[in-house]
Amino acid sequence: MTLRVGVIGAGIMGADHANTLRRSVRGADVTAVADVDLARAEAAAEGATAYDDAFALIADPAVDAVVIASHDPVHAVQVVAAVRAGKAVLCEKPLAPTLAEGRQVLREIGGPGEALLSLGFMRRFDPGYVQLRQAIDDGSIGAPVLVHNVSRGVSSAPNATSEFSITGSAIHECDVVPWLLRSPVVEVSWIAPRRSSQANEGLQDPQLIHLRTADGVLSTVETFLNARYGYVMRCEVVGENGTISLTEPARVVIEGELKRSTGYAADWRPRFADAYRLELQAWVDSVLAGAPTPLATGRDGVAASAVAEAVITSMHEGGRVTEVELP
Amino acid sequence: MTLRVGVIGAGIMGADHANTLRRSVRGADVTAVADVDLARAEAAAEGATAYDDAFALIADPAVDAVVIASHDPVHAVQVVAAVRAGKAVLCEKPLAPTLAEGRQVLREIGGPGEALLSLGFMRRFDPGYVQLRQAIDDGSIGAPVLVHNVSRGVSSAPNATSEFSITGSAIHECDVVPWLLRSPVVEVSWIAPRRSSQANEGLQDPQLIHLRTADGVLSTVETFLNARYGYVMRCEVVGENGTISLTEPARVVIEGELKRSTGYAADWRPRFADAYRLELQAWVDSVLAGAPTPLATGRDGVAASAVAEAVITSMHEGGRVTEVELP
Amino acid sequence: MTLRVGVIGAGIMGADHANTLRRSVRGADVTAVADVDLARAEAAAEGATAYDDAFALIADPAVDAVVIASHDPVHAVQVVAAVRAGKAVLCEKPLAPTLAEGRQVLREIGGPGEALLSLGFMRRFDPGYVQLRQAIDDGSIGAPVLVHNVSRGVSSAPNATSEFSITGSAIHECDVVPWLLRSPVVEVSWIAPRRSSQANEGLQDPQLIHLRTADGVLSTVETFLNARYGYVMRCEVVGENGTISLTEPARVVIEGELKRSTGYAADWRPRFADAYRLELQAWVDSVLAGAPTPLATGRDGVAASAVAEAVITSMHEGGRVTEVELP
Amino acid sequence: MTLRVGVIGAGIMGADHANTLRRSVRGADVTAVADVDLARAEAAAEGATAYDDAFALIADPAVDAVVIASHDPVHAVQVVAAVRAGKAVLCEKPLAPTLAEGRQVLREIGGPGEALLSLGFMRRFDPGYVQLRQAIDDGSIGAPVLVHNVSRGVSSAPNATSEFSITGSAIHECDVVPWLLRSPVVEVSWIAPRRSSQANEGLQDPQLIHLRTADGVLSTVETFLNARYGYVMRCEVVGENGTISLTEPARVVIEGELKRSTGYAADWRPRFADAYRLELQAWVDSVLAGAPTPLATGRDGVAASAVAEAVITSMHEGGRVTEVELP
Repeated sequence: MTLRVGVIGAGIMGADHANTLRRSVRGADVTAVADVDLARAEAAAEGATAYDDAFALIADPAVDAVVIASHDPVHAVQVVAAVRAGKAVLCEKPLAPTLAEGRQVLREIGGPGEALLSLGFMRRFDPGYVQLRQAIDDGSIGAPVLVHNVSRGVSSAPNATSEFSITGSAIHECDVVPWLLRSPVVEVSWIAPRRSSQANEGLQDPQLIHLRTADGVLSTVETFLNARYGYVMRCEVVGENGTISLTEPARVVIEGELKRSTGYAADWRPRFADAYRLELQAWVDSVLAGAPTPLATGRDGVAASAVAEAVITSMHEGGRVTEVELP
Repeated sequence: MTLRVGVIGAGIMGADHANTLRRSVRGADVTAVADVDLARAEAAAEGATAYDDAFALIADPAVDAVVIASHDPVHAVQVVAAVRAGKAVLCEKPLAPTLAEGRQVLREIGGPGEALLSLGFMRRFDPGYVQLRQAIDDGSIGAPVLVHNVSRGVSSAPNATSEFSITGSAIHECDVVPWLLRSPVVEVSWIAPRRSSQANEGLQDPQLIHLRTADGVLSTVETFLNARYGYVMRCEVVGENGTISLTEPARVVIEGELKRSTGYAADWRPRFADAYRLELQAWVDSVLAGAPTPLATGRDGVAASAVAEAVITSMHEGGRVTEVELP
Repeated sequence: MTLRVGVIGAGIMGADHANTLRRSVRGADVTAVADVDLARAEAAAEGATAYDDAFALIADPAVDAVVIASHDPVHAVQVVAAVRAGKAVLCEKPLAPTLAEGRQVLREIGGPGEALLSLGFMRRFDPGYVQLRQAIDDGSIGAPVLVHNVSRGVSSAPNATSEFSITGSAIHECDVVPWLLRSPVVEVSWIAPRRSSQANEGLQDPQLIHLRTADGVLSTVETFLNARYGYVMRCEVVGENGTISLTEPARVVIEGELKRSTGYAADWRPRFADAYRLELQAWVDSVLAGAPTPLATGRDGVAASAVAEAVITSMHEGGRVTEVELP
Repeated sequence: MTLRVGVIGAGIMGADHANTLRRSVRGADVTAVADVDLARAEAAAEGATAYDDAFALIADPAVDAVVIASHDPVHAVQVVAAVRAGKAVLCEKPLAPTLAEGRQVLREIGGPGEALLSLGFMRRFDPGYVQLRQAIDDGSIGAPVLVHNVSRGVSSAPNATSEFSITGSAIHECDVVPWLLRSPVVEVSWIAPRRSSQANEGLQDPQLIHLRTADGVLSTVETFLNARYGYVMRCEVVGENGTISLTEPARVVIEGELKRSTGYAADWRPRFADAYRLELQAWVDSVLAGAPTPLATGRDGVAASAVAEAVITSMHEGGRVTEVELP
C-alpha cells in the first residue's frame, strides 16, 4: 500500500521534503511536484509529473495526499482546496500569515476537514525535543519553572522584517513551548537589544520574547536571524530540581590549529533532518492507516499564530505585556 | 517495487532488523521470519510467515532476499543455501566462526554468488564513522599516524571466552579500521591488563589489540565487554596535523544532584540505530536496483576474520607480533 | 614587606578570605580577625588576635589594611571607620544595603578616602570573565548585542526575600555586565515566572532581569537561589559575528552507571576560588605598592547598587522598564 | 619568615619558576638567578643577583634554597653541590640523564641529603590528577584495570631523538602512573606507528608505550612531540565499575565561522600553571616548616628513570617486553 504524494512548492523546503519522501520514507511515492517556476518543479519531480499550478496538482487523481511547502501567503487557499478535494494535507508552518486567515481556514474546512490537516511543526519529532518532553512528564527535573530557547541562523532574506522574525522563525517556539509544557501560552512580551549591523533595515535582529503559559512557567526566546556564525538551536527546561537541555548533535570533534571544535551547519536542514524524516514517516503511516494525525493539527497551527500575533502586538506597543487571544 | 525479505534469527538482532525493515526502510516487506524457537519467530513475524527451519524460509518463493542474524556457527551454511537459491543475502558478522570456514563459503558460492552477498558491518553506515573517513580522505587532519579505538559494553554472556571478545566484538574494528584507512591490516599484536573481577573465568577482559595497516598506521583497540557503566564506542584518528574523533551522540544533557550528565545506553542498539537503518536501506536499494552492494562484501568479511585469527594467535602466543594471512 | 591584614567577619566568606590570605597570597599576614561571635573569630584567627568588636580591630596598630566580610548592614559604618583610620579596605559587596547609604559612604570618606577603598566583585578576576572581556575588546566576536547570564545556587537562607536575590546575588551581574561591556547600565526591567515550591514564602525565585547598557546591548540575568542541583554560573556574550561563553570549569569527567558526568559544587567557593585568590593578591600588591586599586572601586559599588535599586523598583512596579539613576 | 630562593637556569622553565615564585608564592623571594648566559640570568633576575656560574649561586649566603632548571646533563652535579651546601633543592626532571647517574646522585648525597631533595614532577599538584588519584583511592570507579595517557605537543627541538621523547616527555607518565596507582612499574614495552613527516630524522614520533604496574594494571602512553595542533594532555583511569578522566581545562568556548571551539595552548605552561604554582608553594611551605617534602623525592626521580631506561631498552630491542630494574 503506497501513498501517492504531491508536493507543492519546489524551493529548498519542498525539494527537501520530496527528496526525503522518495529516499527515506516507506509507504510513499512522490507522484507530482508543483511550483510557479515549472523548471524548478521539474527538477524536483525527478521524473514525476511537474505542474506550475498547485490546483492542478491537487486535482490530479494520481495524488492521494499533498505536502504544502509553497510561499506562506498561499498556504491557506491551497489547504482549503486540498481538503475539499478530500486529500490529506501536511502544510508547512504557518497555516496562514495572520491569525484571522488561519481561523478562516478552519472554518472553511470544517470539523471533518480538520481531520485531514496536519501542520509541519517538525520539532515535535526531533529526538532531542521528544526527550525534553519525556523528562518533564516523568518528573525527573521537578516541575518546570523556566524554559530558555535560543534560535540563531546565519542570515535572513534581504527584505526580512521584524514581524517575519516572529511568524517565520519564532513561530516554532510558539508551538513547541506549549507542546513541551502541555499548557497554552496565555501572555507574551517582547524586548529588543540594539540592532545588529548585519541585519537589514526594517529588521530588528536579534529579538527577545517571553511566553507565559497557563501553568505560570516563563519561557524566553532569543531569535537572531543574522547570527552569522552558524545555525544554532537551544532549549533548556529548568525545573524545581534540575534541568534538561538539548545538546548540539555533532557526530565528530576536530582538533587542529590550537582548537578543539565541533561544527555547525549553515542552515536548518542538517539539524532537523531526522525530525523531518520522522515527521513525514509518521504522517504517511497515519494517512495510510486512516488514523488521527500524530502531527500538529490545524488548531495547533492557529494557536501558534495567536501567540505570534500577540508577540507582534507587543512589539508594536513598546514591549507591553500582551494577552494571547485564546479560541 | 518491493523487496520481500526473510529474516533468519529472531533474537535481539534479528528482531531489531525485522522491526527496522518494517517501520523505517522503504521498498521492503518482511514476509517471513525463521528461528529454531518457533514462538520467537512468530512474535517477530508480526503476522508474516514464521518458520522454525531456516532452509524452509530460504526456499519460500515469497522471500526475495534474506537477512541472516542467527547464531554465528550456522551463518556459513545459511549463506551458501541462500546464495544457491539465487537470493541476495545480508549476513550479520561474522561470515563464519573461523577464517577457514569463511574462505570455504566464498569458494562454495563462487564469484557470481559473491555478488549476492553483503556483510553486516554497520559501522560503515554510522554517520560519525562516515565523517571520520571523509576527513581522512580530504586531508583535513593530514596523513593518519594513529587510530585509537575503545569498545566497551556493560556485560557479556556468562560463558564468554577471550577469543569471543575478538571474533564477536573486536571484529568490528578489524573491519572498520582498514575501511577507514583504505589499507589492509598486515600485522597485529595483543596485550592484556589484569582481568576485571567482573568478567567470568575464561574471559580475559579487558584486552588491548594493535593493528598495523599496510600504510604503517598503528591502530589500538581496547575491548572491554564488562565495563559495567555503559555502552561506549570511541574512535580517534590522529593525523600529522590534527585529529578527528567520534563524539558520544547524546541528544540531551541533564543537570541534577550536583552533576551535569549525558546518558549511555546499556547495549549497542541505540548507539547504532541510525547505522542499521541506513545500512538496511542501502542494501534494499541496491538489491532492488540490481546494483553492486555498497555494504561490506564477503571478501571484507573474510579479511576481518583473517585479522581476528591473527589476533587470537598473538593471544595464544604471549602477545607476539603476528602477521595477518592475506588472501 | 608584608601587609598586615585584619579580617572583619568570620563567617563563610570571612574565614575563606583569611584562609586564602594566609596560605596562598604572598606579601600578606592575617594579624587579626573580628566577629560578633568571639569564638568564631578565634577559630578563624588561627592564633592571630581575635576581636568581638570590629572597631577595635580597625584601631589595632598591627592592622595595616582591612577586609570587610561582615553582615551587609554594617559594611558602610565599618568602611567609613577604616578609611578614617587611614587603612586600605577591601569591602565585600554590597558597599551598603541601599543606594542612598552607599552614596553617603562616598561622601563621608571623600575623594582621598576613595583611593583607599576596593570592592569585592571578584568575578573581575575570574580567568573566564577576563577572557570574555578580552574577546570583546579584541573584536573576535564582533560588536556585542546580547549578554545572557545565569546564576543558580543550591538553596537560600530560610528568610530570604525577593529583594535580597537582587542585592545579594544579582548585584554581581549589575557590576560585571557594565565592566565587560565598558558601558554603564541605564535601564532595567524585571519579570518573574511562577515561584518554585522550593523557595520560601516572600522570595520570588527564580527571577529574570534585563539590563540595558548605554551602548544598547541587552543583558539577561536569571537568578535562581534554590535551583537545588548545584552552583552554576553562566555568561554568554553574543556578538555580531559570534559568541563567547564561560565553560563549567570541571577538572575531571566521571563515567559510571550509564552516565558521563562532570560535577557541580554546592556553593560558590570552589567556582571562584581562583578569582578570590587573584583578587586578594592584586589587592595586597597594589596596597603594598601604593598604587591605585585594580579592583572595583567604591564608585563601582555605588553604580552596582544603583542598578540593583532600579531592578527592585521594577519588581515593585509590575516589571515596568525603569531608568537607572546615574551619578 | 621568607625563603630566599636561587634559581639555576633562566630558560623558559627557569624564568617561569622565578616569575611564579616572585608573583604568586607566599613566603619566598628570588634572591639570585644563574645561567651560563649572564644576560639571560639578569633578565630573569629582575634586580636580584645574577650569576653565570651555578656554583657561585649555590655558595651565595643569601640563597637558602635552590631551584634547578638548567640543562638536563648538569642537574646531577648541581644537585650534589647544593645538597652538600646544606640547601634545599627543587630539581626539574630528570634528576640525571641516565639511571646510573641518578643512582650515583643518591649515593653521593646520602640519606640525610635526600631529605633536602625534591623533584619537579608537577603533575602530582595538578588539581585534575589529584582528583583522579582521589577517585581511585575512594573506590568510586572500582579497582583500576587500565590507564590511558596521551601526551601531545606542538613541535620538538630540531635535533630531538627517539630516546629524548622518553626521558624528556614520557618521564612524566613514568612518574605519575605509579603515583596514581600507588604501585611501581615493573614491566614495559614499546611500539611505534609510522613516523610523522613532521618529525625530524632520528626521532620516532609518535610512540606508544605500555607500563605494567605491580598491581597488574596496564597503562598506555602515547607520546607525540610534533602533533602540531596543540598541547594536549589526557589521562583516563578505567576501573571495574567506571572511569575518570582529565578534562581539557578551558575557561571559555567560542562560536564563530560554523564552529564551536575551545582553545589549546601552544606549550605546556598554561596547562600546568596551577600545578607549578601549587608545587612551588608546597615546596616553600615545607622547607620553611622543616617538614618532609610533599613533592616527588630523589627516589621517585630514580624510579622514573628506571622505567624510562627500560622503555628505551624495549625501543632498542624491537619492542620486546622488558622488566624494570627495581632498587
